[in-house]
Amino acid sequence: MIAPPGAGAHVMVTFCQFGAGRIGAIHAGNIAGHGRARLRYVVDIDAAAARALAGRCGAAVAETAAALADPAVDAVLIASPTDTHAGLIERAARAGKAIFCEKPIDLDLAHVDACLDTVRAAGVKFLVGFNRRFDPSFRALRQAIADGRIGRVELVAITSRDPGPPPIAYIKQSGGLFRDMTIHDFDMARWLLGEEPVEAFAAASCLVDPAIGAAGDVDTAVVTLRTAGGALAQISNSRRASYGYDQRIEVHGSAGMVAAGNRVPTTVSLADAAGVRSDKPLHFFLERYAEAYRAELDHFIEVVEGRAAPLVGAADGRAALRLADAAAESAQTGRPVRV
Amino acid sequence: MIAPPGAGAHVMVTFCQFGAGRIGAIHAGNIAGHGRARLRYVVDIDAAAARALAGRCGAAVAETAAALADPAVDAVLIASPTDTHAGLIERAARAGKAIFCEKPIDLDLAHVDACLDTVRAAGVKFLVGFNRRFDPSFRALRQAIADGRIGRVELVAITSRDPGPPPIAYIKQSGGLFRDMTIHDFDMARWLLGEEPVEAFAAASCLVDPAIGAAGDVDTAVVTLRTAGGALAQISNSRRASYGYDQRIEVHGSAGMVAAGNRVPTTVSLADAAGVRSDKPLHFFLERYAEAYRAELDHFIEVVEGRAAPLVGAADGRAALRLADAAAESAQTGRPVRV
Amino acid sequence: MIAPPGAGAHVMVTFCQFGAGRIGAIHAGNIAGHGRARLRYVVDIDAAAARALAGRCGAAVAETAAALADPAVDAVLIASPTDTHAGLIERAARAGKAIFCEKPIDLDLAHVDACLDTVRAAGVKFLVGFNRRFDPSFRALRQAIADGRIGRVELVAITSRDPGPPPIAYIKQSGGLFRDMTIHDFDMARWLLGEEPVEAFAAASCLVDPAIGAAGDVDTAVVTLRTAGGALAQISNSRRASYGYDQRIEVHGSAGMVAAGNRVPTTVSLADAAGVRSDKPLHFFLERYAEAYRAELDHFIEVVEGRAAPLVGAADGRAALRLADAAAESAQTGRPVRV
Amino acid sequence: MIAPPGAGAHVMVTFCQFGAGRIGAIHAGNIAGHGRARLRYVVDIDAAAARALAGRCGAAVAETAAALADPAVDAVLIASPTDTHAGLIERAARAGKAIFCEKPIDLDLAHVDACLDTVRAAGVKFLVGFNRRFDPSFRALRQAIADGRIGRVELVAITSRDPGPPPIAYIKQSGGLFRDMTIHDFDMARWLLGEEPVEAFAAASCLVDPAIGAAGDVDTAVVTLRTAGGALAQISNSRRASYGYDQRIEVHGSAGMVAAGNRVPTTVSLADAAGVRSDKPLHFFLERYAEAYRAELDHFIEVVEGRAAPLVGAADGRAALRLADAAAESAQTGRPVRV
Repeated sequence: MIAPPGAGAHVMVTFCQFGAGRIGAIHAGNIAGHGRARLRYVVDIDAAAARALAGRCGAAVAETAAALADPAVDAVLIASPTDTHAGLIERAARAGKAIFCEKPIDLDLAHVDACLDTVRAAGVKFLVGFNRRFDPSFRALRQAIADGRIGRVELVAITSRDPGPPPIAYIKQSGGLFRDMTIHDFDMARWLLGEEPVEAFAAASCLVDPAIGAAGDVDTAVVTLRTAGGALAQISNSRRASYGYDQRIEVHGSAGMVAAGNRVPTTVSLADAAGVRSDKPLHFFLERYAEAYRAELDHFIEVVEGRAAPLVGAADGRAALRLADAAAESAQTGRPVRV
Repeated sequence: MIAPPGAGAHVMVTFCQFGAGRIGAIHAGNIAGHGRARLRYVVDIDAAAARALAGRCGAAVAETAAALADPAVDAVLIASPTDTHAGLIERAARAGKAIFCEKPIDLDLAHVDACLDTVRAAGVKFLVGFNRRFDPSFRALRQAIADGRIGRVELVAITSRDPGPPPIAYIKQSGGLFRDMTIHDFDMARWLLGEEPVEAFAAASCLVDPAIGAAGDVDTAVVTLRTAGGALAQISNSRRASYGYDQRIEVHGSAGMVAAGNRVPTTVSLADAAGVRSDKPLHFFLERYAEAYRAELDHFIEVVEGRAAPLVGAADGRAALRLADAAAESAQTGRPVRV
Repeated sequence: MIAPPGAGAHVMVTFCQFGAGRIGAIHAGNIAGHGRARLRYVVDIDAAAARALAGRCGAAVAETAAALADPAVDAVLIASPTDTHAGLIERAARAGKAIFCEKPIDLDLAHVDACLDTVRAAGVKFLVGFNRRFDPSFRALRQAIADGRIGRVELVAITSRDPGPPPIAYIKQSGGLFRDMTIHDFDMARWLLGEEPVEAFAAASCLVDPAIGAAGDVDTAVVTLRTAGGALAQISNSRRASYGYDQRIEVHGSAGMVAAGNRVPTTVSLADAAGVRSDKPLHFFLERYAEAYRAELDHFIEVVEGRAAPLVGAADGRAALRLADAAAESAQTGRPVRV
Repeated sequence: MIAPPGAGAHVMVTFCQFGAGRIGAIHAGNIAGHGRARLRYVVDIDAAAARALAGRCGAAVAETAAALADPAVDAVLIASPTDTHAGLIERAARAGKAIFCEKPIDLDLAHVDACLDTVRAAGVKFLVGFNRRFDPSFRALRQAIADGRIGRVELVAITSRDPGPPPIAYIKQSGGLFRDMTIHDFDMARWLLGEEPVEAFAAASCLVDPAIGAAGDVDTAVVTLRTAGGALAQISNSRRASYGYDQRIEVHGSAGMVAAGNRVPTTVSLADAAGVRSDKPLHFFLERYAEAYRAELDHFIEVVEGRAAPLVGAADGRAALRLADAAAESAQTGRPVRV
């Protein structure tokens, strides 16, 4: 149900949010600060975390069933652990709620398909949280391509490195580097190539922390994607960059090249006898993508309001996972994998 | 009176805001979005503007007397036209409210002094809105100086240009370029020189719009300041920069140089046969200093809470105006003016 | 024979140069302009070109046999077409001359081996013209790695694009993109990885000009290299970059990242309502690597003088070709190739 | 006399150079390396320096009278100490030689005028060595202005700082900061303003070295120039910049801003936990203006050959000195000075 706001000017989109962790806190704060949305419930298995976040955002704590049963709730924002995504999507879909789900939908392609069937059957609105599509620089980069500024896309280069690896416990349930981290880059590559990749080749190593290797994962990887038309994409990943979160994209086309770089905390430079020093990139995704998260939520609210179609649909979530599966298989077999 | 917030966790600083114009909207939004503050009243002679802004921020519209009489109001934020500043400061001071006043306090130094006497007598907290001191880049620049990274300050260069001139009506009541626009640069120069300027020389022209000259003002100016110790500062002003708001500072010292540049909307660059193109600076002060305005308000709230001393005091407001007066006199007489 | 120079201060290294084409003109000019070298002969099948270049550099035109028989000649610089390299190397080696040969030694690994056997047997000094090793920026980049500034090398990214494709006639005898163009990048990768690649995977397309495809070659390619230790390198090639010669390298290590970018003709930027414009990179290798060619020759002269050991030896020429063969095979078979 | 070169293709311009010091060595090397010039004589009161430089460049050592009497000499390049310039100019003019003289012509305006009268009477070609006009970046900057890219020039900002002060002995005979160092900036300002300055105001300090003050000079200065049309220029000088030779210019116009920055030895940047580090500017004028010196000589040779008119004439040398005198007077009196 769309309730009238205090000022009487707008109809407010009412949210229930699942997940009160780091990314959950970002989303909840953005909902609370949005002029056309309000946060009604926070749901988290960790009751203290749920209470704290709800308190900060003027929301209440609830159980899943009760929250989904409340007709005042228009939309759910799913930012809980990955293994709960598919189940929550299905329950929310059946309850008729619009759904914003953090990536990935699930680590298993068959589960994703089943889940998306339910979404389709319910006819509810659905957005996958590929936040990078909402980064102002990446958006402008893609717009330049769409405007024909670089001609036909030929080579895409994505650099994507985290400042440091997550805990081993997280690694173990993450689905591996390609499904957890590179999945964003696969989405970016698809979005920018303008054509589906048909082949993936991945080479991966464990160079950052042997414990990651012991957990069956890799921490350093490069991926090559190829489209049917012959366009090529390269991805460069590391779980650790001493200089901060490294998120850059270059697209080379027949008539030019467009690039988007990192953002820095300040523009200060210091020149002295030792050289010129300037800021390293913003530390991590919370800082770098702060604007993207706000824009993403704003877009979702427009989707719920019926004023926009989702820019990132279920098929996008599925396709990125399909590429992640292919890359993981390639890294293991040492062979390129057809997609 | 400091009232308990909904979540019971914090004491909320309650504001009355004067002025519902462009800069008023920024401050009101920041108060409304601050976790430890709330906006109770908006006061503006333009009732419609006051209602609209109050509506957006969950506040009520009020008359000055009533608002200042309300014991729930802890603080006033004065963002009304310059000629109302001194009067509102005095009334708020007598009502015992903490005061955040946009620059300038007044265009007349004698009025400023009388006004500041009242503030001192009332013993209320007082902050002048020199927002640039809260810009993350300028803050980091000054911190580098304070940390001794460039040795002794010798040369300061401030570039400060607006994207376009204000309406002639505004020009006429602005006090002139030096008191309206350069006053920020005088504050920056004082803040960075670490020593009071003792002399100002200004050369000014009307190059942007003859109507500005006809109104008795200039639109293009350079100023030289000198301290007793021999450090020198240069300011470069224009009311019009085709490429956007140009706000840069360089400080050259005995052991290095520190500089802060403009911020850009995106990091996108486009390389093609014509060269490499990138974004021009953020358009104007609302965009460039968005973070500064938030940080400035946050600082004022800490001041009201008793957790910080004001970083920009009444004396700073006075000293910048004193330099503006000297520069205006210098531009008119063609002679350097002792301060 | 090392002859005394006019000023009596230095012994001059006397050169015979093979090849009076574009790159030959660069080398001849550098020899003529070097304080410790002189150019005695220019040899080229195109007599007019040989005469013109010799005239400009104060040298004489000669036949190969006569030039190599002249005991005054200390060194040969081979900048003739690729298919003449191996033969000239062998003849020069037998004549006891020091040899500076442009890359590649030959397009056939067996020929290279036979040729290098002759060089070894003759005991003459030998330098392969991998000019990029002498580029000041790439040199400084490698020095930073050698100095431990980025820790252990993990990821290398090489962007290498020509402003436009060579004539089809050149393409046909070039040995293909990997042996002609990427060979430089293979040398850079080996030089920076600090460990031999053991596997190459290449994906290639013909996107720039169908005539290149019709000639059996590709014009757009990406390559992945892997070392035994797990370090990874990516190369991105195109025969056409609308914005000029694109020559950049990034190396990501365990403790930092070091990057070297393009050089520009001027530092001029123009800011206006349309954004900020600056120069595109220097147009092509003659401009970008002008300093590198001078430094390379200076190094070779030091080698001939016995004051330095060759920084790029026969084994380097061979190893780069070995990687080029592997990449070509990979691009054709679609499989990674062990090296 | 214009003698035929070895290759018979060009007529060679034959030089006598006065001065075998630091800047003399640059010019002599450029003459020797120029395809259409040769250095016949080097003249210096320091016989050993003259011999060494002549030896390196294939020239002979000579006395002034003999050198000027030699009809084979077409042109003189005067790079001897400033107090010898006027005398040599007059003798060379009477001998009918084309003259390239390093700035300044003389430190005394009356001497300059007398000297230029002699030059005019003799009808010889004359170029003043304002090398910065030949810097590729400053040239491109000026071309952008000439092309109307920034509209009408309104504000010029010149930053000009040396890496370190010269010896006190040099300071004492230099004519002071404004005539020795700022004179280049006065020439740049005139060149870019497109209109003569009518007033100069200078503020100066001794902050770098008290010995400079004791010698009656200053080491830190800022200058304001104003044209009749109201355009304004600012200059910022220091005899010491810890980060190297700082040579930047910005010109703000009615339709845009054009800027030229420093050049760096390499494009290498290093990103790590401490930030991003890159090169400081090229160390000093020999490095920064290496290209400018070559282009300047090439231009002079074209002037001697009758293929170009001098880009920097006697009047330019005089006008810059006039501004230097005005600035020196302003710094002493504390008043702006009409020019």
